[in-house]
Parts: sequence; C-alpha cells; structure tokens
Amino acid sequence: MQKSHLFTPGPTMVPGDVALAGAKDMIHHRTDQFKAIYEKVAKQLKVLFETKQPVLVLLGSGTSAMEAAVDAIVAPGEKMITFNGGKFGERWGKIGKTLGCVVHEVQYGWDDCADTAKLEQALKDCPDAVAVFCQLNETASGIGNPVKELAEVCHKADKLIVVDGISGLSAMKCPMDEWGLDVVLTGSQKGLMLPPGLAMIALSEKAIAKMGGHPARIWYNDLRAALKNDEKSTHAWTSGVSLYQQLSVALDMMLAEGIDNIIHRCHVQGDAVRAAAKALGLELLNAKSPGDVLTSILMPDNVKASELAKYCRGHWGIYFAAGQDDYKDKIIRIGHLGYQDHFETIMAIAAFEMAMKHFGAEIELGKGVKVAQEILMADLEEQEKKAASAG
Amino acid sequence: MQKSHLFTPGPTMVPGDVALAGAKDMIHHRTDQFKAIYEKVAKQLKVLFETKQPVLVLLGSGTSAMEAAVDAIVAPGEKMITFNGGKFGERWGKIGKTLGCVVHEVQYGWDDCADTAKLEQALKDCPDAVAVFCQLNETASGIGNPVKELAEVCHKADKLIVVDGISGLSAMKCPMDEWGLDVVLTGSQKGLMLPPGLAMIALSEKAIAKMGGHPARIWYNDLRAALKNDEKSTHAWTSGVSLYQQLSVALDMMLAEGIDNIIHRCHVQGDAVRAAAKALGLELLNAKSPGDVLTSILMPDNVKASELAKYCRGHWGIYFAAGQDDYKDKIIRIGHLGYQDHFETIMAIAAFEMAMKHFGAEIELGKGVKVAQEILMADLEEQEKKAASAG
Repeated sequence: MQKSHLFTPGPTMVPGDVALAGAKDMIHHRTDQFKAIYEKVAKQLKVLFETKQPVLVLLGSGTSAMEAAVDAIVAPGEKMITFNGGKFGERWGKIGKTLGCVVHEVQYGWDDCADTAKLEQALKDCPDAVAVFCQLNETASGIGNPVKELAEVCHKADKLIVVDGISGLSAMKCPMDEWGLDVVLTGSQKGLMLPPGLAMIALSEKAIAKMGGHPARIWYNDLRAALKNDEKSTHAWTSGVSLYQQLSVALDMMLAEGIDNIIHRCHVQGDAVRAAAKALGLELLNAKSPGDVLTSILMPDNVKASELAKYCRGHWGIYFAAGQDDYKDKIIRIGHLGYQDHFETIMAIAAFEMAMKHFGAEIELGKGVKVAQEILMADLEEQEKKAASAG
Repeated sequence: MQKSHLFTPGPTMVPGDVALAGAKDMIHHRTDQFKAIYEKVAKQLKVLFETKQPVLVLLGSGTSAMEAAVDAIVAPGEKMITFNGGKFGERWGKIGKTLGCVVHEVQYGWDDCADTAKLEQALKDCPDAVAVFCQLNETASGIGNPVKELAEVCHKADKLIVVDGISGLSAMKCPMDEWGLDVVLTGSQKGLMLPPGLAMIALSEKAIAKMGGHPARIWYNDLRAALKNDEKSTHAWTSGVSLYQQLSVALDMMLAEGIDNIIHRCHVQGDAVRAAAKALGLELLNAKSPGDVLTSILMPDNVKASELAKYCRGHWGIYFAAGQDDYKDKIIRIGHLGYQDHFETIMAIAAFEMAMKHFGAEIELGKGVKVAQEILMADLEEQEKKAASAG
C-alpha cells in the first residue's frame, strides 16, 4: 500500500471535489452552458489576479503563457531585459531569442534575487529595452523576487514589467493593478490545485496597446485572438472544457478561503519548514529572499538530493523535488503551495528527517517536527482567535 | 481550506481508485456482467477470510451481519454466551434478546478482554449454550481478544464460535479455517477501505448445518437465502452494485499488498501510537490486550475527550473518535486500520499532541512524534531489506 503525498512545487495535490468536476458530463464549448462557466470563472480570476483587466485562459502549461507574453510585448528586433537566477528566469531568454527579440539577460547565482540595483544597472546597460521579464518566485531555487519594487523602477523608466507567477501566484502576494504590473501569468497545477493543462494571463491597458503595435509571430497562443474572443466570452480555439469545470470548482474553494488567507497559509507553512531546517542544522539555498512557494534545503556533502527525492517517491510515496542543473544533487525542494494543510506540512518534515537519516545524515528525528508544530499550532490558534472575534 | 484526515476506527479513508470505481457505469445485478464481478470478489473474499467456505455479502452495515449470524446460529429459546466488554460486545446480547434467544452475558470492564478463564466459567454457568459470540477487536475500547484460544475452548466444549471481525478483520490475524471459527463477519468501511454499506459473513460447515435446523426469523438478511443464491453467484435481493464494483478494486489492492502485510502495517502503526502515548506520559485503556485496530488513550482529568475530538474534527479536519458511554470523555481512539500510511500515523500523533496542548495538557510537542518516527522508520527499513532480499 502506498499513498501519494505531493510536496512538489507543482503539480500539487488535487482536492477530491476538483477531481470529480473533471468527470462531469462533457459539454460543448460553443454553447450558452459553457459561456456561463466562462463568465463566472472570468470574474473569479480577476479577484485572484487582483485586477480589473481580463484574465485570458490558455489551454497549455504555464510555459505557453510565457511564450504568449513575449510575443505580445516584444516585437522582433526589440530589446527585453530578463532576470536569470534559475531555470525559469533562463526560460524568458530562450523564448525571447526564439521569437527574434534581443535579450539582455541579467544572470546571477541561484541563491540571489532580482533586485532594484540589478535592474537599474540593466536599464543603464540596455536603456532601449521595451520590457522587463521576471519571476514572482523562481521555482528552481525558491527565491522570491521583490516584484513591487521592481515594478516601481520600471514605471519610472517607462518600461513594461512582465511577471511569471506560475508557481508564485496564489502562494505569494501579487496584486496586479495595485503594483502596476503589465503582464501577470500563472498555471493550473500549482496554487490553483488543478491538473496541468491551463495557463492564465492578464495584460494591462499599456500591455494591450503594446501588443497592438506588431503582428503575432505565434498562432495558437496569440493573445490578440484570445482577447478578441474574450469579449464574447469564448476562446479562439477549442476550450479545455473539463479543466475549466475543475477550475470553476477550485476558484470557488479559493475565494471561499480568501486569497490573503491562502497566501498567509503558504507563508506560515514556509516559516515552519524554514525553522525546521534550521533546527536540524541545515542551510537554505533561498535564505536571502525566501519565497513562500517552496523551501530549498541544501544537502550535506554525503547526501545526494536526487537520490533522496527518488527514494522518498519510490519507496514512501512522499514527493519532494530535487534540484535542477548544477543543484540537482544539492537541494531538496519542499513545496508550501496548493492543497496542503498544516498537518501535511508536519508530515513532510517528519518524512524529510527520516529520509535524511536513511541516507546517513546526522539528524535527530523529531527536532524539526517540534519547531514546526510550535509554529503551525501558534498559527492555528491565531486563526481560531480571529474567527472567534469575527463572530 | 480544510482537508479531512480520518483516523477513526471506521469509516476509514477511501482510496481514489476505490472512490472512482463507485462512479462506474451502473450495471444490472441479474446479468453475466455482474456475475463475473460476483465470482471474482467471492474468490478474493475467501483469501481475505482465509477460508474455503463461501463468504456471503450483505447490503447493510456490519450490524446487519451480526443480526444474520444470531438468526442463523441460535434458535429461539436456545442459549448463547456473549462477551460484553464494550458497546459491540453488548450488541450481541441485545440482538440475541430481540430474536428470542436466552443470553448469558459475560460482562467485564472495558479495559479487560474475553479470555479463556472467563469462557470456561461461562460454560460452567451456562453449559447448554449453543454458541459463543465475541469480538476479534472491541471497537469501543481497542481491546483485542484471544480468538484462537477462545476457539480452542469452544471446540473442546462442542460450542460454535461466532466472531465479529467488523473492525478487526484485515487489521488483525483471524484465519477462519485454521482457527476453526464457525462464523466470521466484517463490514466494508473499516479495513476494506470502502464507504459503509456492505457486510461480509462466512459460515463453517457446522454453522451451516446448525442454521438448517431452524427456520429464519428475519427476512432480508436471512443467510439461508443468501447461501442458496450464492451457489448461483447472485444475491437474494438487489445487489449493492456500485459498492461491489468498489469492493472489487479494494480487494485487488489488498491482495496485491498481501493480507499478512496489511496486518503487519496495522500492528506497527499501533506500536507507534502506543509508544508515542507512553512517551507523552499517557496511559492506554486497552493496555492489557491491545488490538491493532485502534489505540484508546486515557485522558488526563482536565481534558474531555469528546471536546478534543470535536475540536480536531471541526477546526483541523483531523478525525479521532472519543469514547462511548462512560468513556465518552475519558478516551481518545486513534485508528490504525485501512488506507493509512506510516506518515499519516505520524501526522495523527503530531495533531494529537497539538490538540492535547490546546486543551491545556502538559505535553511536550514532538516527544511522541519522535518515538513514532523511530518505530515506523525501522519498519520501513525492514520492509526495504525484505524487498531487496526477495529480489
């Protein structure tokens, strides 16, 4: 008997009610029936993105929305600044080059973040860039970026700012309109608790205007077509009907919990894992600017992260993510996002301790769990008080 | 956001694959299609019950099979010996009286078990009893009874032995044929990992002969009709089609794991919870003869079990069972049966510690978790070695 407990930074665990919604009767996407779901979801996505702008839904993974964003914002031959502090920051550059843009890449270590100093330097080095591309959370490292501050610099320099919130949105604060973000995008298999298959992307008025200035280089995920069809509450191509029905249920759950409460939950679970790692005498790769999507714990020399992750997955049904590229064997990434409660976070820490011990690390079982219990219990009690005083 | 983690001694958690099987296309119960499932399940249930006898499936909860057993084994006016060390032992007596039997009830404290000394005394006090009714595991207390030894005494005294394995079967050893048990029964919502709704019951040749000696007093769950229809691989009345389809999947899972492995898993999880309670300085109600279905932890005077269970359920989605009757506020019952892995057992202990602390008990967080981690990890490593040596 082996159950699956996913602590990976996507895909995350899918609630039973969301899974069931994927088994609803198939309906046709060019019907009033589907239109009603489209319109309900459209309103809810605006709440999630904290925007008045339309949020377009693509049938593809988060990367499809990244490509769509580059196509929309940067014309061929135009310059774009990208932050590369990990696999996903790197992806902006790769997409940009493929679509004929001139990429000015700000590269730095995976333990570092995209900060305003780096941005100001980039703007000096590449003053005619039209837009800045960054991650809310770099999934490869767990680093959270100061998107609000980056946006302020972009505003002053009159540059568009594009934010990949694939793993970050709905785990970390990212109010699109308040912070003046031009493009925000996310994917379905992270904080949204869905299977993979949908991507969501919203464009500011300025971004839409910019998009109108050059023709599309891509066809399927051309946001001009998506935007035009959105006015009629439909998609350009066949809609992801079942995933949409699941999205509708997931959004009901999320809005019932409240976006700020979800973000708080991820933050506290992040605090618990960070404190547990510290109690176990371990360092974090993302200590400088920890995002609340995941925590990346640096392995001692005698433990290979990829082997630990493989072992936990194969033998215990516990899913952690090892590192990527140079960090493949150096970090274990434990997610805090999506359909994960405080008690499962404790389970994750207990399993991590046991796995470390299995691989010969000097770990005292229960030491990390104890501090996590304290932090998570304090939060549960705090929530309790809030609920009581709210009547 | 609140998930449900069931650590109650039934209903237990239902695996996704079993849940999905309940949504399969409805089929008619008088068809070759259903007959094929019936026959497959019939073979598998014999493996589970460790018997060559037919295992009859009733559409009802476990109690329906208890009533059917009394009807089958004890004619009106005949005497029966029942062991009452809890709610479920008590039930044998209530059913017996309702069906016109003369009940000789052996009553004792909930911290005690049905042992051979009590049985021998009962056989002296009531020498003309036709059968002895006991529990493999008394769910009210978590006491496991020495069914093998009780059966030996029954054999010598030429009495039939009827075993309620509703919570016990598939968590504790109970080989029907090897131990010479005359009736063994169970329910679907325990170790079988199904929703409530099915009961299974098997009768020895001797029990079948006894049943033939008097007419049925009940109609719907008359085992004479069930047995006759079983020869044609069908039920007397409408079959529980969807539950049957779920049963088929659950049995596939259980036999793939292996009955002895399941029993071992429950035992080790029981060991972990027992050791955790001890580490926390708490006593067990079922310490004298702990079954592996559940552990009943005695509460300190300042913590009311029913309030603790209600709080965990309502606020945290963690399901423990409080006590019943006089023990309502005195014990917390934590289950080890069904679809529960070692990591969830750790979660249960962590949550229990936190709940105790919430209610003001002097509990050091993580202390029980630590010893549970050690026990469960040792078992995981042991399983690993076994698997490796099995090649």
